[in-house]
Amino acid sequence: MLTSVSDAFAADLRARLPAAAFKGDTARYAETPRGGATGQVGLVVAPGSTEEVAEVVRAAGAAGVPVIPYGGGTGLVTGQIAPEGPAPLILSLERMTAVRAVYPAENVLVAEAGAILADVQAAAEEAERLFPLSLAAEGSARIGGLLGTNAGGVNVLRYGNARELCLGLEAVLPDGSVWHGLKRLRKDNTGYDLKGLLVGSEGTLGVITAASLRLFPRPAAEGTAVMAVPDPEAALALLALVNEKAGATVSAFELISGTGPRFLAETMPEVRLPFAEPPDWMVLIDLGVGAGQDPGELLEGIFAEAFERDLVTDGLVAQSEQQRAEFWHMRESIPEANKRIGAISSHDISIPLSRIPDFVRRGPEVLAALGDYRINCFGHLGDGNLHYNCFPMPGESRDDRLDEKAAVQREVHDLVDEFDGSISAEHGIGRLKAADLQRYGDPAKLAAMRAIKDALDPQGIMNPGAVLPLR
Amino acid sequence: MLTSVSDAFAADLRARLPAAAFKGDTARYAETPRGGATGQVGLVVAPGSTEEVAEVVRAAGAAGVPVIPYGGGTGLVTGQIAPEGPAPLILSLERMTAVRAVYPAENVLVAEAGAILADVQAAAEEAERLFPLSLAAEGSARIGGLLGTNAGGVNVLRYGNARELCLGLEAVLPDGSVWHGLKRLRKDNTGYDLKGLLVGSEGTLGVITAASLRLFPRPAAEGTAVMAVPDPEAALALLALVNEKAGATVSAFELISGTGPRFLAETMPEVRLPFAEPPDWMVLIDLGVGAGQDPGELLEGIFAEAFERDLVTDGLVAQSEQQRAEFWHMRESIPEANKRIGAISSHDISIPLSRIPDFVRRGPEVLAALGDYRINCFGHLGDGNLHYNCFPMPGESRDDRLDEKAAVQREVHDLVDEFDGSISAEHGIGRLKAADLQRYGDPAKLAAMRAIKDALDPQGIMNPGAVLPLR
Repeated sequence: MLTSVSDAFAADLRARLPAAAFKGDTARYAETPRGGATGQVGLVVAPGSTEEVAEVVRAAGAAGVPVIPYGGGTGLVTGQIAPEGPAPLILSLERMTAVRAVYPAENVLVAEAGAILADVQAAAEEAERLFPLSLAAEGSARIGGLLGTNAGGVNVLRYGNARELCLGLEAVLPDGSVWHGLKRLRKDNTGYDLKGLLVGSEGTLGVITAASLRLFPRPAAEGTAVMAVPDPEAALALLALVNEKAGATVSAFELISGTGPRFLAETMPEVRLPFAEPPDWMVLIDLGVGAGQDPGELLEGIFAEAFERDLVTDGLVAQSEQQRAEFWHMRESIPEANKRIGAISSHDISIPLSRIPDFVRRGPEVLAALGDYRINCFGHLGDGNLHYNCFPMPGESRDDRLDEKAAVQREVHDLVDEFDGSISAEHGIGRLKAADLQRYGDPAKLAAMRAIKDALDPQGIMNPGAVLPLR
Repeated sequence: MLTSVSDAFAADLRARLPAAAFKGDTARYAETPRGGATGQVGLVVAPGSTEEVAEVVRAAGAAGVPVIPYGGGTGLVTGQIAPEGPAPLILSLERMTAVRAVYPAENVLVAEAGAILADVQAAAEEAERLFPLSLAAEGSARIGGLLGTNAGGVNVLRYGNARELCLGLEAVLPDGSVWHGLKRLRKDNTGYDLKGLLVGSEGTLGVITAASLRLFPRPAAEGTAVMAVPDPEAALALLALVNEKAGATVSAFELISGTGPRFLAETMPEVRLPFAEPPDWMVLIDLGVGAGQDPGELLEGIFAEAFERDLVTDGLVAQSEQQRAEFWHMRESIPEANKRIGAISSHDISIPLSRIPDFVRRGPEVLAALGDYRINCFGHLGDGNLHYNCFPMPGESRDDRLDEKAAVQREVHDLVDEFDGSISAEHGIGRLKAADLQRYGDPAKLAAMRAIKDALDPQGIMNPGAVLPLR
């Protein structure tokens, strides 16, 4: 039986840890970026060392107090707040931010869980290496949270998701023991993949305190193009062509429906759009090439062949770093424009690549039964990962139609399920999708997950209610 | 309490499954490629479908009979035989060999667990795609076993190990339930990474029956070079240079000590050696490049710069497909030459890349206390993975010195541990290294592994004694 943080528990912890570990202003730990629910906050503790993290977890275990491991607070599925149940201890890693070591010759960097992604990217760059994890929240997201949620982003196509970028972990397990697993080995078959299990477990199986991360050589040159395509079929054919022509140098392949640029024009007119008239569909292609290759030439060759084959109707290859940055700025401003328009329901889904055109056709059909929506379908096409967001019609307010949210989500997720896709491609399950996971998940896998959770965290203190329902 | 396969159990199973599922000649299931121990064989069953696999597992669970999931039988750590304990049921996947589907546009192939690696490679090639898993036993190793042991091989550097090549699984869990997890998604954050957990669990957590696997575009052209290097330091500096110049096109970077070619000259004189006088150290570099790149030119440029910097003393860039094949044939014949010489003790280890030169220096020093050995140190330097094998001196027989095996292994593994390496880089733990895993493994990780094993397989029927010790 779990219990709220009590005064006695807080006093006990204060006696054991330095004063610096306790945060006064705790309001921000109750909120999430997309708003909505508010979390309860029993106490916020920010340990300064792995041993202190272990001490906190042991104390929570002894008292039966729930623990929410807390990174940058940027998660989108309410995994970092507990609106219900006993008031939890928020265990923030924000004071463990060190890059402990960089091994350029090994292409490895060891960072503490509280290190901010942008700082890790910068430390890699300083060593003339690339840490390729890249996403909108990189200025505030922390390594522990990024690993805890198996973050994705724009470069998964080439470099893999957070799990694939992690070689080893140091973590405090639910019983308060410390796993010293900061190996920096590319091959290590000594037992079960505990690293892969903790990565993506969203704080329900332990607290990541540090990680050894894979670095890569920096590309010698980078190039970016935007190309207007007639439809998602053409986008897929273009992806195949890009893979064939540019192979392992393709860093990103993003699909952008015309809704995105139209929303930008409406809400953020300062963002420069590549085409005067937003095409119904466009793609953004990013290449990072080796010495002696010219990314611009490659992209122009691809465009020429694609044009010949009617896969593209228009296109621009960035002629300068500034233009590259503009293309990317356009792509990365779409989430903010979405926010300003106000979605009724947003979905982070993935679909088997070859079925995406059919999915994109079917989506509006199934939603038509519920009402009229503007759909912004965009995302990491190279990974089959779409952000499929449904908005009210022009002139309507999101708030007037929020009662449709559950039905819209059900329709979209039912369709995703029918297409053998995933209802959470990169954001995770958190609390927002915990019921949906029970609904759509494979029963044998769900039973195995529950057995693993109960085995490693028999008291259920670690982030209760996230991923798996409360018992 | 586990029990041997009984006549009653066998009769019951025969009544439930088609006659074709039962193998008459069972002797080969008792042996492993490196010889030594002989396994007990209670019964060999080769189901024809996933449902039959589930039936077998359920029957074994009801009777408390141990089950060894069996692939191609090529494992090197005695994971596929049980020399001790109750006589097990060997559950062979050899009759489930279908490539169920190929999705070229998605770069995905779905194969049953009994499919032989070479057949999967061929099916990918037929679809103009590459399945990059490649290792010496590819003509007989089966997908289920390759995943069960998280196989490595020569292309891990570029494409990852078996776990990273696997997008989804279908598996029978120890309770006989079937997990239908054959997703073909690059991003799927719906709960714990059960796929990653089963991959590499060596049949102790369930039986893989099918997998969806990642394919890649085939390189437009491939090139191979062998270069003589003065020492492992130079080999590492050359690796850095190759990464810088050839970036993402490097498919393999193999280190070969002079011992290998000398063994080849002695035992397999028909194998062509690249240099008249075997250098103390050489590397084999393999590139797979995109359209418009010339791998030979790239390799020659690398050689020129490396020669300038005294990183190489000699080198050959393959001038034809035949010469490429010769270089690789030399590399891939080394294990056979080792076998003919006869090792006292062989080790599959990995070491943090930058510490390898120091490790290579220290090895002979620590072994000198035990006696004189010829050391063949070779392997996948790009992954930090060395095969470190110790042989008797010329004129001596391996059999005369087998009593040193345990001491040699202890010295080598102690040194690996001191260097923060892994005592099993790619071969797995099996039964051969189960005690060493207990010795060198992190206690918190071992406890978590045991908890997971007990949670998913409370009876302990799945491959008991492999990875974790018998209770």
